[in-house]
Amino acid sequence: MADIPERGFPEAEFATRTAKAQAKMAEDGLSGLLLMSEPEVRYFSGFQTLFWQSPTRPWFLFLPATGKPIAIIPEIGAALMRRSWLDDIRTWSAPAPEDDGISLLTDLLSPLAQQGEHIGIMKGHETGLRMPLGDYERLIAGLPGLKINDATGLIRGLRMVKSEAEIEKLAHICAIGSATFAKVPEFAAEGTPLEDVFRAFRREALLRGADDVPYLVGGADQGGYHDVISPPSRRPLATGDILMLDTGATWDGYFCDFDRNYAIGAADDLSKRAYDVLWRATNAGMDAARPGATCRDLFYAMQSVIAEIDVQGGDVGRLGHGLGMQLTEWPSLAAFDTTVIEENMVLTLEPSLGYGNGRIMVHEENIVVRRDGVELLSTRAAPALPVI
Amino acid sequence: MADIPERGFPEAEFATRTAKAQAKMAEDGLSGLLLMSEPEVRYFSGFQTLFWQSPTRPWFLFLPATGKPIAIIPEIGAALMRRSWLDDIRTWSAPAPEDDGISLLTDLLSPLAQQGEHIGIMKGHETGLRMPLGDYERLIAGLPGLKINDATGLIRGLRMVKSEAEIEKLAHICAIGSATFAKVPEFAAEGTPLEDVFRAFRREALLRGADDVPYLVGGADQGGYHDVISPPSRRPLATGDILMLDTGATWDGYFCDFDRNYAIGAADDLSKRAYDVLWRATNAGMDAARPGATCRDLFYAMQSVIAEIDVQGGDVGRLGHGLGMQLTEWPSLAAFDTTVIEENMVLTLEPSLGYGNGRIMVHEENIVVRRDGVELLSTRAAPALPVI
Repeated sequence: MADIPERGFPEAEFATRTAKAQAKMAEDGLSGLLLMSEPEVRYFSGFQTLFWQSPTRPWFLFLPATGKPIAIIPEIGAALMRRSWLDDIRTWSAPAPEDDGISLLTDLLSPLAQQGEHIGIMKGHETGLRMPLGDYERLIAGLPGLKINDATGLIRGLRMVKSEAEIEKLAHICAIGSATFAKVPEFAAEGTPLEDVFRAFRREALLRGADDVPYLVGGADQGGYHDVISPPSRRPLATGDILMLDTGATWDGYFCDFDRNYAIGAADDLSKRAYDVLWRATNAGMDAARPGATCRDLFYAMQSVIAEIDVQGGDVGRLGHGLGMQLTEWPSLAAFDTTVIEENMVLTLEPSLGYGNGRIMVHEENIVVRRDGVELLSTRAAPALPVI
Repeated sequence: MADIPERGFPEAEFATRTAKAQAKMAEDGLSGLLLMSEPEVRYFSGFQTLFWQSPTRPWFLFLPATGKPIAIIPEIGAALMRRSWLDDIRTWSAPAPEDDGISLLTDLLSPLAQQGEHIGIMKGHETGLRMPLGDYERLIAGLPGLKINDATGLIRGLRMVKSEAEIEKLAHICAIGSATFAKVPEFAAEGTPLEDVFRAFRREALLRGADDVPYLVGGADQGGYHDVISPPSRRPLATGDILMLDTGATWDGYFCDFDRNYAIGAADDLSKRAYDVLWRATNAGMDAARPGATCRDLFYAMQSVIAEIDVQGGDVGRLGHGLGMQLTEWPSLAAFDTTVIEENMVLTLEPSLGYGNGRIMVHEENIVVRRDGVELLSTRAAPALPVI
């Protein structure tokens, strides 16, 4: 494995992100952005904690038209936030069901409301509202005059294109993922319950340097697996099984997301053929992934190969997606997504197909788009279905 | 460790939960509940997957006034949902930014809207909206006549009191957590970087049977740590450090959540005293945790002991909380929470204090409230600060 990158980012990275956002805000006529989801708060502040797993407390970051972001957060996070590049950190003793940051936000936003200004929040595709809806409705009702725009496109545009420092982190966790998959033949064999394979995979990924393995799904069954989002069963692997493991491991807050397929003992012809088709579909996706192409182009490039065999079902909705601080991010490699591919986008190519009697197979690789083509971040899967 | 419990729940468990919810819905005049967050969808359907980590696709469960819940979910989850007790599973090819379940939901809810019925959604404390706010606004605008009530209290009332099958799972993961903490002296020593301690802890918990360790925070510093939600640094442990590890490990979708404190090499007097105070505060909390007491009572029982030393800061907002499918759940052990403690509530007791020069210390145990008092789910921490 290559050297371990530095954790965190230099302050300049946050300053650049903030300046880019503010330039777009000016274009869009926005006097501020109110952000409250983990990736966005981290993107502009560097604030990184697993405490987001507790749903109890909301966290807010306000990006003004000029100047550094302002944090409005529970006091429990103040010490950690003070280590960030932010200067203005406003806290309250949370949880406080009657006023979980609402009066602090009202104080901050009232001057903008009085002038009838527009602010942006994220309310579009692949977002959620990470605060109680009732609190949001109360907040807005208390700020008559304030105009709320959807800033999903603005944030999406920034986050889809990665910096070199981000790519370095993504490459590192992808390398850890590849090194972990290389060990699968050592702990997945006939007779091993799938649950134990999962446990061994997580332990191996940690040993290889992952901070965590928050996402691990997969399946194994005779002649092919049936769905791709299941937790593991206690069923022991058997000769003739097709085993798939799909992992999202993390390092310094960035994800890899790719899978590998294996046959246990022996592979059936149909699964071998499905594997070959998907392997070549992935190649077609890599060839198509150039700056200036659209996500739709990549989709059809892969789909045209998949069409050799795809007879049915196995609808996973798209053939890849963005990758970064989240396991899945914009854009989608799908017919509906006309996003233009740009240099330094990090993507998963994830062709899948239905075959046999309700079987499904999925391939996945992680790539970064460069000026002249793609760089693989994951070590390319074997060209033929590996037999363990 | 005791025998491993069965995974999942018998269908009767979901039928009971659904019947209880429907009885409360009738009392509250609700013709349905529209649920969309992971714990609630799982609570009524048994649908369990890590795929929720992908923010791309919304998932919906509708609880009608009578009959089984109805799933409105992306096609990628259909195979797994068909293994649940549900009969009515409606799917769409997601992601579909223009219509991510909205027309399916509109079809389902239109008859209720036309009759001016009330449905419940969760919009209160400790909730979020796990769908794009823009989609929610569009959905509601398309259903004139439909009345939306806040059903947080209804769901909260059900989920706070655990079944024996849930308690069995919680006891199992707490036992795994205790067995893992017992090994900390073997991998945390002077010179070991804190990051390596975290990695070893996760691997040990997996070895002991945890499905995952999604939450692990902590700190270590001379004479005490400074915050309780940080990721680990590369700083090596040094003699005189106070080390704290706080974990939320999972088994079959249920969390433990407790911490342990250790001194490296030698303990300073102030930290020893803080530890003793918190240990006794935890005892006071256990003594107070009886059916009929309020969360406020538990808070003051612990706070009165903490007051022996608490001189400043360290504001974490409460002294414990509910525990179950989420790392933190209702209720809060806080002055604001007058929830009456009931038999079979599972709680964390989490007294904390600020001391010294900006130091903080937190204790935490997991308990289940029984008719005559508490049962510890975590193995009680040592009465004096352990020195490694």
